[in-house]
Amino acid sequence: MTTIPIMDVTAARFAPYGDLLDARGPADMVINQGMCNRHHDRARIDMGGGDVGVSVFDATPRRLPYQLDLMERHPLGSQCFMPMTEHPFLVIVAADDGGKPARPEAFLIPPHTGVNFHRNTWHGVLTPLHGPGLFAVIDRVSGDGVNLEEHVFDTPYVITGQG
Amino acid sequence: MTTIPIMDVTAARFAPYGDLLDARGPADMVINQGMCNRHHDRARIDMGGGDVGVSVFDATPRRLPYQLDLMERHPLGSQCFMPMTEHPFLVIVAADDGGKPARPEAFLIPPHTGVNFHRNTWHGVLTPLHGPGLFAVIDRVSGDGVNLEEHVFDTPYVITGQG
Repeated sequence: MTTIPIMDVTAARFAPYGDLLDARGPADMVINQGMCNRHHDRARIDMGGGDVGVSVFDATPRRLPYQLDLMERHPLGSQCFMPMTEHPFLVIVAADDGGKPARPEAFLIPPHTGVNFHRNTWHGVLTPLHGPGLFAVIDRVSGDGVNLEEHVFDTPYVITGQG
Repeated sequence: MTTIPIMDVTAARFAPYGDLLDARGPADMVINQGMCNRHHDRARIDMGGGDVGVSVFDATPRRLPYQLDLMERHPLGSQCFMPMTEHPFLVIVAADDGGKPARPEAFLIPPHTGVNFHRNTWHGVLTPLHGPGLFAVIDRVSGDGVNLEEHVFDTPYVITGQG
């Protein structure tokens, strides 16, 4: 099995796969009489003509090393995960290689940061490393077509702690 | 000044104003090979023909008693606030009374819970009670029309701890 070490994430490293959403850097707007910094419209939301919804996911925390058997993508919509805790979490993504995932990359998403997978981007399922594994999820909740494609690896990858 | 005690929130009490989003009760779907409970599509999202976006708000925590000078509403879109921490937060809402807020109600939103204000619902600005005051916000980020109406009270209300 191939071992993939977890990397620290940066916006540049994550850009091929999606957006990082956080409140770092200067705000785009200061609202509420100076009491709130608005970091505005930070995700490329694309519902492919379907309807957007907000759901709450409660995922079982995983332990490292993590065996990656499967990745998935959503051909018809982006999918945004905003943590409802202050814990970091693991995100696994991959470029496309002729209809299946290329070698995956694994990122540790730091506290106070969400991710938005762009439409049709290969990613692992939600993998919190701490409980509770609660996330607000903004994705396509209705519309025509099949919005899930899965790929099972013949040989799983092993995701390990930071190299 | 009129004092308004903070109430515990329930879905029934909050229903005239919006939705509560949490992971209580049975999941709507169990996904990811049994590892994730999906509490599906829990907010009435209404962008009034405009575009939805995801932003991050970083609001200054408030202390009680809190003086409520102003409420606002968004005639063209719902607005959903999902906490990015495990802290409770304060939400103030009001029915409409001929174009201005009726007597406000104040709710303590418990940990692991978000709120979605329905389109054109009077509400106070974001009022966390603990730092960091970080929220994922799902609201209307572009489209025609003016999506903000504010009302300043002649006499402020005072929001106090739970009665």
